[in-house]
Amino acid sequence: MANYAFGIDVGGTTIKCGLFSVDGELLESWEINTRKEDGGKYVLPDIADSIKAKMEEKSIGYDDLKGVGIGVPGPVLEDGVVDICVNLGWGVVHVKNELSGLLNGIRVEVGNDANVAALGEYWKGGGKGYRNMVMVTLGTGVGGGVILNGKMIHGSHGAAGEIGHMQVEKNEEAACNCGKHGCLEQYASASGIVRMVRKGMADPNVKTSIVDTPDLNAKMIFDAAKEGDEFALAQVDAMGEKLGTALASIAEVVDPDAFVIGGGVSRAGLILINAVTKYYMPAAFHACRSADFKLAELGNDAGMYGAVKMVLD
Amino acid sequence: MANYAFGIDVGGTTIKCGLFSVDGELLESWEINTRKEDGGKYVLPDIADSIKAKMEEKSIGYDDLKGVGIGVPGPVLEDGVVDICVNLGWGVVHVKNELSGLLNGIRVEVGNDANVAALGEYWKGGGKGYRNMVMVTLGTGVGGGVILNGKMIHGSHGAAGEIGHMQVEKNEEAACNCGKHGCLEQYASASGIVRMVRKGMADPNVKTSIVDTPDLNAKMIFDAAKEGDEFALAQVDAMGEKLGTALASIAEVVDPDAFVIGGGVSRAGLILINAVTKYYMPAAFHACRSADFKLAELGNDAGMYGAVKMVLD
Repeated sequence: MANYAFGIDVGGTTIKCGLFSVDGELLESWEINTRKEDGGKYVLPDIADSIKAKMEEKSIGYDDLKGVGIGVPGPVLEDGVVDICVNLGWGVVHVKNELSGLLNGIRVEVGNDANVAALGEYWKGGGKGYRNMVMVTLGTGVGGGVILNGKMIHGSHGAAGEIGHMQVEKNEEAACNCGKHGCLEQYASASGIVRMVRKGMADPNVKTSIVDTPDLNAKMIFDAAKEGDEFALAQVDAMGEKLGTALASIAEVVDPDAFVIGGGVSRAGLILINAVTKYYMPAAFHACRSADFKLAELGNDAGMYGAVKMVLD
Repeated sequence: MANYAFGIDVGGTTIKCGLFSVDGELLESWEINTRKEDGGKYVLPDIADSIKAKMEEKSIGYDDLKGVGIGVPGPVLEDGVVDICVNLGWGVVHVKNELSGLLNGIRVEVGNDANVAALGEYWKGGGKGYRNMVMVTLGTGVGGGVILNGKMIHGSHGAAGEIGHMQVEKNEEAACNCGKHGCLEQYASASGIVRMVRKGMADPNVKTSIVDTPDLNAKMIFDAAKEGDEFALAQVDAMGEKLGTALASIAEVVDPDAFVIGGGVSRAGLILINAVTKYYMPAAFHACRSADFKLAELGNDAGMYGAVKMVLD
């Protein structure tokens, strides 16, 4: 009977590692650096070394280990193959087989980081108690994950839940990082909100308490809105329209019982939820209007939780 | 060992019934009328009677019956409960239990008609050989169904696949049947295409071979486009933009390996597929652009096939 499992969340700068009991309790967590040099070839060996060191420290044998779950910032196919991960310098990497090979053949499960975070929130965070859930992560970009009947969906090309790249505006001149125009991420991410505010402030008639400094961020904009700044309120409203309408379209595809909103921007809290639901309700099919809207609860730990959940199922 | 199963497709006017071998061969099909009077209370007893008559005719005993699958035109929850079906006059009906009760307690599975048709196409039609598939039915309305890993998804409120009600235009004055404004169905259904053409023809400067008679239909419009009518071509293009963009948004949620397009409008064939993919490609996330676009193959039999598949799985 195995008593332990690891949940690993690989980011572009650091890798978060968690040692869990098989009951899902996070016993210990730590971070290692993400070494991206040489096509990211050290990433998996570094993770394996860190896991082996922790096992030795805690006197955990392989027979006491249920497995290792790992979330990576790129498209993951169902067989655990990652198909190009720009943030890590990876081409096609068979993460499941490679990491398992470095760890005595133990079970390894792999998922896209945003999908894995969704699974974490579903299991232990804002999505607890729901059956079908869509998570939206409003960070530097906009990520997403879809959980149906308690299972993460990968998609045929590892792109399920890539909702940041839904086209929500057909007349956008600026290009998204993905090369398209008018993606949700261009309006609803931390940088998207700042972009739209700067665009609005270019109008000399705009009166606002927001000051356009190089470090202007989404929090400052939401704070101004909370203090009643009309321009900031209009910007939050415009962001809510884009996001709320997109979530309604998602509801008409997978019909979840809850949306969980996470990422740094979600710290704005109720003002954000209100702006989103204001536009979700009229745009959503009537049966989908009873979906709940929740804030994420696990913060940066969601990825570790979701990762380990893949091997505890 | 059971050798037979029934697949039933309930429509607002007729009910299509199919007797299948457990290998999935359609042995015989027939239709009965949909009696909607008195809140649709005769619908399930009529189906049960028709099944029993066929069993007697063919000397099939209950022990030789694997089960009955049934598709109905309304939202179906996962426990087989239908929550209001306007077309049949139903309120909340526990279809699974009621029909099973009328048939000696045999296994009954229930699905929404569009979802069930998607399962049929996935199994025996245009979606054969794919794993994740989204079907779009362009008929009087626009219906849809999502098949992931070979399983139909219902959604938390029985509304998964209600893609006809994705909001694709925010400045629409006309109301959709659902009460919202700017639903996909208002542009891409048979009646939606006619509506948009009539709207365009109100401009006296428009030159077209299309004649606005009371029986103007989508086929006439596609036929005019095929013959090079510029106005008709522009209308087909506009419809392709709405549908192609919506399918791209769907791809960013569930990332299928194929879209299957069915319903009466799909008989237009290649011109329709070309109009849709012209707008799908630039709007879709790069990983999703390799999805295939196929025409449905089973026509009106898709519902029977999908219905029986639910009890053969």
